Amino acid sequence: MRVKGQNFRTIWQKQDDKEIIQIIDQRYLPHEFLVIDLLTYQDAIEAIQDMAVRGAPLIGGTAAWGVYLAAVQAKNNGAGVPFILDACKELVLARPTATNLKWSVDRILKAIESLDNVEEILNKVEKEASDICNEDVKNCENIGKHGLELIHKIAENKSDNTVNILTHCNAGWLATIDRGTATAPMYAARDAGINIHVWVDETRPRNQGANLTAWELLNEEIPHTVIVDNAGGHLMQHGLVDMCIVGSDRTTRSGDVANKIGTYLKALAARDNNVPFFVALPDSTIDWDITDGLKDIPIEERDSSEVSNVTGSNNGMIESVRITPYESKSSNYAFDVTPAKYVTGLITPRGVCNANEVDINKLYPEY
Amino acid sequence: MRVKGQNFRTIWQKQDDKEIIQIIDQRYLPHEFLVIDLLTYQDAIEAIQDMAVRGAPLIGGTAAWGVYLAAVQAKNNGAGVPFILDACKELVLARPTATNLKWSVDRILKAIESLDNVEEILNKVEKEASDICNEDVKNCENIGKHGLELIHKIAENKSDNTVNILTHCNAGWLATIDRGTATAPMYAARDAGINIHVWVDETRPRNQGANLTAWELLNEEIPHTVIVDNAGGHLMQHGLVDMCIVGSDRTTRSGDVANKIGTYLKALAARDNNVPFFVALPDSTIDWDITDGLKDIPIEERDSSEVSNVTGSNNGMIESVRITPYESKSSNYAFDVTPAKYVTGLITPRGVCNANEVDINKLYPEY
Repeated sequence: MRVKGQNFRTIWQKQDDKEIIQIIDQRYLPHEFLVIDLLTYQDAIEAIQDMAVRGAPLIGGTAAWGVYLAAVQAKNNGAGVPFILDACKELVLARPTATNLKWSVDRILKAIESLDNVEEILNKVEKEASDICNEDVKNCENIGKHGLELIHKIAENKSDNTVNILTHCNAGWLATIDRGTATAPMYAARDAGINIHVWVDETRPRNQGANLTAWELLNEEIPHTVIVDNAGGHLMQHGLVDMCIVGSDRTTRSGDVANKIGTYLKALAARDNNVPFFVALPDSTIDWDITDGLKDIPIEERDSSEVSNVTGSNNGMIESVRITPYESKSSNYAFDVTPAKYVTGLITPRGVCNANEVDINKLYPEY
Repeated sequence: MRVKGQNFRTIWQKQDDKEIIQIIDQRYLPHEFLVIDLLTYQDAIEAIQDMAVRGAPLIGGTAAWGVYLAAVQAKNNGAGVPFILDACKELVLARPTATNLKWSVDRILKAIESLDNVEEILNKVEKEASDICNEDVKNCENIGKHGLELIHKIAENKSDNTVNILTHCNAGWLATIDRGTATAPMYAARDAGINIHVWVDETRPRNQGANLTAWELLNEEIPHTVIVDNAGGHLMQHGLVDMCIVGSDRTTRSGDVANKIGTYLKALAARDNNVPFFVALPDSTIDWDITDGLKDIPIEERDSSEVSNVTGSNNGMIESVRITPYESKSSNYAFDVTPAKYVTGLITPRGVCNANEVDINKLYPEY
């Protein structure tokens, strides 16, 4: 997507040195646009853990390129195949909630299981990582295509012709390789000439909405308004939201959706006000092994400083301010689970389906 | 209540010059504890508008002392009774949502309607303002007494004996003259030897929870944890909240509750998880003229900079950091309305009642 008019993906091989992976460091957006180099698989883990990259699909893509970097290291340092396999184990543990992390590493492990030569493995991993990223772009394009139909129907029934979409956190192109999941239908609608306006939840504690989604939409020139996470219910009560589209970090085979903390509250408000609540997700986000999201999805607790402090720009300097008393405790659950019954539909690369096991299975009969 | 061990109210006549009103300037808490002087009714309006004081009962108390300051000015400048009456009109308009503002000024106007001498009016207003504040303290004590019974029942049924209470915004003693509304039952429970722990919603955009409620509870040594506004639903899904108690800025005679933006979302989550959701309020918060909260309560829109920026302490300096891109719009609805059907009960100075017109009327037959 566009950054000041220039096209970018979120992760790529450096043009003049393919053994270096480059990413957009998302920690300084929207205030600074930085591209950084990942030289080792440890750099990839750090980028995932410190949230230089975030979002389920991009975490999956970064883990894939992390395995590639491990193979580069194994080749250059003379370490053998065990080094690569150990790196895979470490990569999978980088963050607990995003199922794409495991999905991505497992896929690569499967692709290289019959190989025992580091050079061969390196080539294979490079191809797989590339494929994972290219397929993600294709997935997002397809999510956009199917989501566009939903937006189109709403637009047809609105006299003022502008569709108001509320989104939570950033399931935008910055959370994927390109196009985004929740944002893909928005970009598709814009491309199709439909007028949209996006309510952007700021998404405390890390403000990915205020920092990233707003910045994305600004660069793509899509009308949007940032609101506090508290405001969505009020907007829905007053008919100011036509639909919600959010992303997902992990979805059960029965349609329970783990996503950024606070998603559940928006789903409740949507239900109470008859606003359709859609979740956009690539297949890799579905965890086929679990059915009860509340019981089976571990919720990551992150450092409490993300709650007690807020980071932003003060006259161009990026600073963190403390909002709680120094002696007060704070806690930081990063995700919540929206039960399937509150989800109007899942927007997948294969089409839109109801959030229940039978209907999901119709789209994905192979699982 | 206690500030570093010393007792304070939120507003009072200066000890050595009764024509000066003093308030705790709440804009710098929890980082700086400042007491400032109000010398004119314009100072009182500014304190209300800039939120040096906030909270429905304290706004009412400040408006009352504002009329007193107008009377002081009228006496000292030789301006007549019309000056005081004009000041009353201006005071009522200081903020649109808090019904106590009008209630308080109307009460004083009624008390002085038969008087035409500035000196007499001054004495009468001083007495009324004092009474309004003292009655508010008594009201809060009674809210505490009735709320304590609810907490006590929950404590009896809990094996671990600690009652987890979630609150939104600050309906604490800083929002009243003393004791608070939503916090009064907490202080009463603590005084009665019941173990409580309070989940404090930070309450964006102005963070009154993180800044004020946490600071209050800290000074009163009540265990508490600050959470982002997004977290309450997740906590309720996992049985970590035994009850919610919030305040109210305006309540209809039918029990619809206008309170800080985001309250409605917590009420929905409470209902979805069978967590009792109580609203603590003094009589003056009930607007007897309206029945439909969603239609009849105007929702104040405040400056968007409260959303785009966050204020806190950076190494002891109070600073504001920008979290949204400079070119992105943001909007700032300050309150929302929780329909009566989601309110388990109203905790009033006269007792606890269901949130419907018939039951409210049983407690308040004179309206």
